[in-house]
Amino acid sequence: MQQHGEDAAPLAPTLAGTLTDEGHVCSARIYYADTDFSGFVYHARYLEFFERGRSDCLRLSGIGHIPLAEGAFGEPLVWVVRRMEIDFLAPARIDDIIMISTRTVSISGARIEMKQVITRDGMPLVTACVEAVLVTPAGRPRRLPKDWAGLLMPKAA
Amino acid sequence: MQQHGEDAAPLAPTLAGTLTDEGHVCSARIYYADTDFSGFVYHARYLEFFERGRSDCLRLSGIGHIPLAEGAFGEPLVWVVRRMEIDFLAPARIDDIIMISTRTVSISGARIEMKQVITRDGMPLVTACVEAVLVTPAGRPRRLPKDWAGLLMPKAA
Amino acid sequence: MQQHGEDAAPLAPTLAGTLTDEGHVCSARIYYADTDFSGFVYHARYLEFFERGRSDCLRLSGIGHIPLAEGAFGEPLVWVVRRMEIDFLAPARIDDIIMISTRTVSISGARIEMKQVITRDGMPLVTACVEAVLVTPAGRPRRLPKDWAGLLMPKAA
Amino acid sequence: MQQHGEDAAPLAPTLAGTLTDEGHVCSARIYYADTDFSGFVYHARYLEFFERGRSDCLRLSGIGHIPLAEGAFGEPLVWVVRRMEIDFLAPARIDDIIMISTRTVSISGARIEMKQVITRDGMPLVTACVEAVLVTPAGRPRRLPKDWAGLLMPKAA
Repeated sequence: MQQHGEDAAPLAPTLAGTLTDEGHVCSARIYYADTDFSGFVYHARYLEFFERGRSDCLRLSGIGHIPLAEGAFGEPLVWVVRRMEIDFLAPARIDDIIMISTRTVSISGARIEMKQVITRDGMPLVTACVEAVLVTPAGRPRRLPKDWAGLLMPKAA
Repeated sequence: MQQHGEDAAPLAPTLAGTLTDEGHVCSARIYYADTDFSGFVYHARYLEFFERGRSDCLRLSGIGHIPLAEGAFGEPLVWVVRRMEIDFLAPARIDDIIMISTRTVSISGARIEMKQVITRDGMPLVTACVEAVLVTPAGRPRRLPKDWAGLLMPKAA
Repeated sequence: MQQHGEDAAPLAPTLAGTLTDEGHVCSARIYYADTDFSGFVYHARYLEFFERGRSDCLRLSGIGHIPLAEGAFGEPLVWVVRRMEIDFLAPARIDDIIMISTRTVSISGARIEMKQVITRDGMPLVTACVEAVLVTPAGRPRRLPKDWAGLLMPKAA
Repeated sequence: MQQHGEDAAPLAPTLAGTLTDEGHVCSARIYYADTDFSGFVYHARYLEFFERGRSDCLRLSGIGHIPLAEGAFGEPLVWVVRRMEIDFLAPARIDDIIMISTRTVSISGARIEMKQVITRDGMPLVTACVEAVLVTPAGRPRRLPKDWAGLLMPKAA
């Protein structure tokens, strides 16, 4: 299942970040669009960076949004976020380069729980616990395939 | 301190919502911009609706962002969100009209804690506990004025 | 076809703005989410305000997004924007109340052209010429129903 | 003037894209946050991708937003967009990898004009002509330094 835009890959070797023993890590830049008039990043925009981390962690683990939505796992499926606990520890600013780390904590039933942290120069800026659920387009939850735990749970001892 | 755009007020009597004994309530519409390809509202966009609720609650209580930022309380001040716990219970969709309710739970030091809920036809869709802090443009927290508790805490017994 | 959230309507009499002989007018507030670190509104956010104007103009004219998407006009249909010319004349700032005016200029084939302006206290801030097209979910353009010209073109002489 | 987050650079060699004889090119991924319920990318989100292209083109040319805002060119300065002409030719979808190309067309007075295009697998999706102006925080235009033409105009014959 080839993805649109793969030709651009040579230009973007790390566009999707990297899988690690712990989970996944990628980086991103802060642009005008991410900031607000306080001079800092608007708090809701961190959730978009967290989404990039989760999406790329899943993609590199072989679970892309397009195959999911097109029924590769039996019927069309999309992710919905069910719960987030977010601590905003320190602000990012325009032009900053941030790192987004994602680690799967548990998988059970239709639900996946991930811990994420955004850092800058190693300093944690925002942490999040995220619960997401796999649902049909009508919103009905669907059990995650059994082998996803093996794909997504950390390999580190 | 007149606000830009007040001439439009006759057209928008409820643009800022309404103060109640419990706190504040306002309504909003879901547009294309709020949705994602799942067909539901993108989870981070609910945080913008919550921000509207808090901003208008503060505004109607006499604490507007512009006076704050211009130093009406001694020095320039802006709000930053420190912590959020969010439960996404049911999704909103394009064209839905939602209601955003905001209630102040506690005020202490530089910190305000609010409980918020987004409903549609009385059904809760998203709930949030939000801690926000008043800071200088350099990011240093500043104690909230003492009389703000009287302005913001619920009047209901 | 009742819309979700109509119970909130008494709280929001003007939530969808007003049809006029010229077209449509509604108002909106600037929040943190709309601004960037320059202190002004982020330029792309004006496009969301324009979308609200077009969406509500269509809705009040009897052409809601939900009926369109659900096939009320023969098959599922959504709007895509094909072209925009935007002049950013003066900036809006946090807490400003803006007015969004929308006027249909022409309807032909699958295409509608609208002129829009955002004002504050009568002063134009941003103007836009917008071409949008009605398409199927697969992206194929579909001719607008003949009677839409009567619904949408200005009544003013 | 070191930038926050430079430690992440080894992980993100192409995060800021690449200067070319023509101008600048970078790539980006489409996430949930960029899409709307039509299934395509929300039209205003393309403007954020264009902003990334312009910002990184300027950054790699030695004109970063932070030095500008901190007065490295005499007084604090920020960019505002004055005019955009945008043609939306074909839609991007979730997970797509897009390329953003930026070319400076002219520099005169306080004004810079750039042509930009977003492609996927070489196919143009969105094109834009953008005029931006350098202003003080109070909104007053400021003449661009004379040597910026040499920095920004295409080297190609």
